[in-house]
Amino acid sequence: MKSDNKIEELMEGLFNKDKRALSRIITMVESDKPEYYSILKEIYGHTGKAYRIGITGPPGAGKSTLVNILAKQIKDRGNEVGIVAVDPTSPFTGGALLGDRIRMTGLLKDPHIFMRSMASRGSTGGIARTTTHVADVMDAYGFDVIIIETVGVGQLELDVAGAVDTTVVVLVPEAGSSIQAMKAGLIEIADIFAINKADREGAETLKFELQDALSLMPAIKNKGWDLPVKLTVALDGTGIKELVDTIYTHKTHLEDTDHLNTSRMNQKKVNIIEIMKHRIENQLWLNPELEPTLKRLSNLSMEGKIDPFTAANTFLKSAKVLNVNIDASFLHK
Amino acid sequence: MKSDNKIEELMEGLFNKDKRALSRIITMVESDKPEYYSILKEIYGHTGKAYRIGITGPPGAGKSTLVNILAKQIKDRGNEVGIVAVDPTSPFTGGALLGDRIRMTGLLKDPHIFMRSMASRGSTGGIARTTTHVADVMDAYGFDVIIIETVGVGQLELDVAGAVDTTVVVLVPEAGSSIQAMKAGLIEIADIFAINKADREGAETLKFELQDALSLMPAIKNKGWDLPVKLTVALDGTGIKELVDTIYTHKTHLEDTDHLNTSRMNQKKVNIIEIMKHRIENQLWLNPELEPTLKRLSNLSMEGKIDPFTAANTFLKSAKVLNVNIDASFLHK
Repeated sequence: MKSDNKIEELMEGLFNKDKRALSRIITMVESDKPEYYSILKEIYGHTGKAYRIGITGPPGAGKSTLVNILAKQIKDRGNEVGIVAVDPTSPFTGGALLGDRIRMTGLLKDPHIFMRSMASRGSTGGIARTTTHVADVMDAYGFDVIIIETVGVGQLELDVAGAVDTTVVVLVPEAGSSIQAMKAGLIEIADIFAINKADREGAETLKFELQDALSLMPAIKNKGWDLPVKLTVALDGTGIKELVDTIYTHKTHLEDTDHLNTSRMNQKKVNIIEIMKHRIENQLWLNPELEPTLKRLSNLSMEGKIDPFTAANTFLKSAKVLNVNIDASFLHK
Repeated sequence: MKSDNKIEELMEGLFNKDKRALSRIITMVESDKPEYYSILKEIYGHTGKAYRIGITGPPGAGKSTLVNILAKQIKDRGNEVGIVAVDPTSPFTGGALLGDRIRMTGLLKDPHIFMRSMASRGSTGGIARTTTHVADVMDAYGFDVIIIETVGVGQLELDVAGAVDTTVVVLVPEAGSSIQAMKAGLIEIADIFAINKADREGAETLKFELQDALSLMPAIKNKGWDLPVKLTVALDGTGIKELVDTIYTHKTHLEDTDHLNTSRMNQKKVNIIEIMKHRIENQLWLNPELEPTLKRLSNLSMEGKIDPFTAANTFLKSAKVLNVNIDASFLHK
C-alpha cells in the first residue's frame, strides 16, 4: 500500500513535469520488475505524442556528439527533447562504459533536454523492450521529440529501428564501400544516412557509392521515400541544420502517406511480442525450477543420447507442472 | 515414402564422405523445414568430434581472406576443414552479397576444404540455430575442424560465440581505442584477438591498448586464459602460423581444464532453447491464424485503449484455441 502511494505520487509528479519523478520512474521501468508494470499500464494512454528518432551506427562514428548537437538544434526549434542512450555494458567490468557520455553532461543543465543513459548488460534480448518502455515514460512526461541512440549494427539496432519513427544511420568516410554498408544490414533500417566526420577523405565517394547502390533498389523506391545521404561534421556543426531539416521532411512524409500510422501500429505489435517473449522465457528456460531438467537434457544431448528436438519436446512437456502447456506434438511432424 | 528413401540414400552418402550428399543435406537443413528434422535427429549421435572455431569482426576487417588462409594452414596440419560463412542478405536485393566470396572459390578445388555460404535473410533470429545445424552436418560428415565466419558485432555474433569452441575476433588498426572494442561487446566473446591488416599504422598501439584494458579485468583472468592479441596480415600470410598455434593452444587449454565439456554442454543447451523459441514463435506471433488477433490488439494499443501487458495477456489467452496454453496470470502479479 505504502509502495502504491509512492508510485501514485511519482506519477502525479511525472504528469506535472517533475524531472525527479521522471528519473525515478525511469529507474523503476528500467529495472523491469513486475511490481512496476502498473506504471506502464497507467502511462499508456498518455503516449503517442512524441516523435521518435533512432540514431545508430558503428562504434567511433561520433554518434554521441551528433546526438548532442541534434538535440540542441531540435530544442532551438521549440521542442523539449528526451534522449535515451543505450551503452553496451561489459559483464566483466560490471558497469557501463560511459567514456563518451562525459562530454554530454553539458546537456543536463539545459532544462529542455533530458538525457538518460542505459546499460545493455551484455544482453540485447530485453534492451529493445526496456528502451521502448523508457521512451514511453518520456512520451507521457511530454517530450516532443525522443532520440534513441544505439551502438552497432546488430539485432538491437534492428529492434530499435522497429520502435522509432525515423532511423538515422551514421557512417564515417572510412566505412568503405557501399557493399560493406549493405552487408551490415544498415540500408534495411535507414530512413536517412548521415556520413559524419565528413571533413575526412572519402566522404563524397562514399556518398556517391551509397546513392548509386540505393538507386538500384526498386523496393526502397516503393517506400515512396528516396533515402537521403547527408554529410555532417558534428564537432563543428557542419550539415546539422540540413540533417534536422531532412528528419522533419521524413516526418512530414510519414504523416502525409499514412506510413506513420502503419509504423506505430507495428511499434506496438513489436512491443507486445517482446513482452510475451520475456514472459515465456521466464517461465521456461530461465525458470530456476526447470534449470535441472534443462541441464540434464543438455548433458544427454552432448553425450549423443538424445537429439535436440526430442530434448526440446521433453523440456516443454516437463514444463506442464508449472501450468505451462505448449503443444509439443509439432516436434514429431 | 519415396522422399524417406531419398533421405536415407543421402545419409548413407554423407557417412561415406560424398560431397554431393553433404551439399544436398546442408541445403535441406538450411531450409529449416520440419520434414528434414529427421536428418538432424539421425546425425546427432555422429557429432561432437569436430573442433569449432568462430571468426567474427566488423565489416571490412578482412575476415574472408583470413578464413581462407587459416583453413589452408589448418589443412596443412593434416585436417579436413569445413567452413560456414554467414552473409547478411539484403531483403531488398533479395540475394546474399557475395562479393567477398569470389576470391574464396579457389578453396572449392581443394578436396580437404569445403566452404558453404549461408544467407541470413535479414533476420538474425534463426541464423544461429541453422548455422549450428549446418555445422552439425559437417561434423557428422567427418570434418576435423569447422570454421564459422560471421560479420558484425551483434546478437548473431554473441549467439555464434556460444556455439563454437574458440572465438577469434578480428579487428583492424583503425578500430580505434580499446574502449570502442569493449563497447562493441567484443571482449566478452573473444578467446583470441587478431588485429588484421597489421601492416597499417596503429596496429601496435591498438595491441598495447587492448592488452592494457584486458589486464585490468580480473574476471577474464579467472577463466584461466590470458586473452592473446595477435597481429596478422592475411593477404601475405604474416602472423598466420602464430594465430593457428594460438588457436591450438586454446584448444589444449579447454581440454586440460574441462572447459571444453562445460562449453559443449552449453552449446547444446543454447541449441535446445533456440529450437523451443522457434517453435513457440511459430505457434504464437508468427501463426497466421492468430495474425488478425495480434493486429487488432496492436491497433487498440496504438489508440491507447489497451496497455501492452494486457494485450500480451489477451493474446496468450486467445492462443488457447490452438492448444497453446501459457499461464498468463503472471501478467497480473
